[in-house]
Amino acid sequence: MVLSGIWRKNENSRDPLPPNLIVSHDKAVPPNSVQELCASVGWSRREPDLIVKALANSLAVVSIWVDGELIGFARATGDKVFNATIWDMVVRPDFQRMGVGRLVMAELLKELDEEYGIPLVTLYADPGTDGFYKRFGFLCDPSGVRGMFREKLDY
Amino acid sequence: MVLSGIWRKNENSRDPLPPNLIVSHDKAVPPNSVQELCASVGWSRREPDLIVKALANSLAVVSIWVDGELIGFARATGDKVFNATIWDMVVRPDFQRMGVGRLVMAELLKELDEEYGIPLVTLYADPGTDGFYKRFGFLCDPSGVRGMFREKLDY
Repeated sequence: MVLSGIWRKNENSRDPLPPNLIVSHDKAVPPNSVQELCASVGWSRREPDLIVKALANSLAVVSIWVDGELIGFARATGDKVFNATIWDMVVRPDFQRMGVGRLVMAELLKELDEEYGIPLVTLYADPGTDGFYKRFGFLCDPSGVRGMFREKLDY
Repeated sequence: MVLSGIWRKNENSRDPLPPNLIVSHDKAVPPNSVQELCASVGWSRREPDLIVKALANSLAVVSIWVDGELIGFARATGDKVFNATIWDMVVRPDFQRMGVGRLVMAELLKELDEEYGIPLVTLYADPGTDGFYKRFGFLCDPSGVRGMFREKLDY
């Protein structure tokens, strides 16, 4: 799907969206492209076969491409009914501040809304990014609910 | 699976676990039982057919039964590889403070660990419950990461 013109009018971003931008909702994103994109923002390496499996088991996957290169990505997991959680929201550094992240979020939420009608969408926001997500109606710790994590580094 | 004796030794709980307790990891929990349990703690009603679908699409479901009645429950969604999120952790009020919640969590985490080996398990803790989850290695907002929610009440 080629992006419609409306997304180019993004007055709060530093630069306009890049031309020739393509939005995909295909879960079969090549794992090497995902690895490269994640490496560009300093995320740790994940095995290609595990990436393929995780994407296939995701509810929705959005990828943004320019000239055959993956420059933006996010996905959501969930039960297809009551809730979804957004993970791995990433934009390649040389394409940041152009509205690509907003496009990724809008496309992902559109799929969660239109395909599944999921009432509760959650995410875990890195420090300083909550303002970005508030634009899409996300609230921090509503009613005192706290995000908690158990990480096992020995897997 | 009948519970092993070790869970009966729960010195921090007010009362011992009830006898004749049965632990199940079957996703096909009757939706009416889930509804009744959720109603017992004041949660809003969900349609039975949606409950069935959501449980089938969950990664793991743990239910605790006494004399044929569902008294404890939790489930997890996720991508089967990198992450899982725990939802709907509930213990019937007349069976609280006996260690049932701890048993539910232990059984759920055991399945996530042994079946999938998932490195990151997350949850959203209601106010005042974070101490409970800390016992299982969960941390609040590590590195400043914040849980965020977008709720649509019109679905």
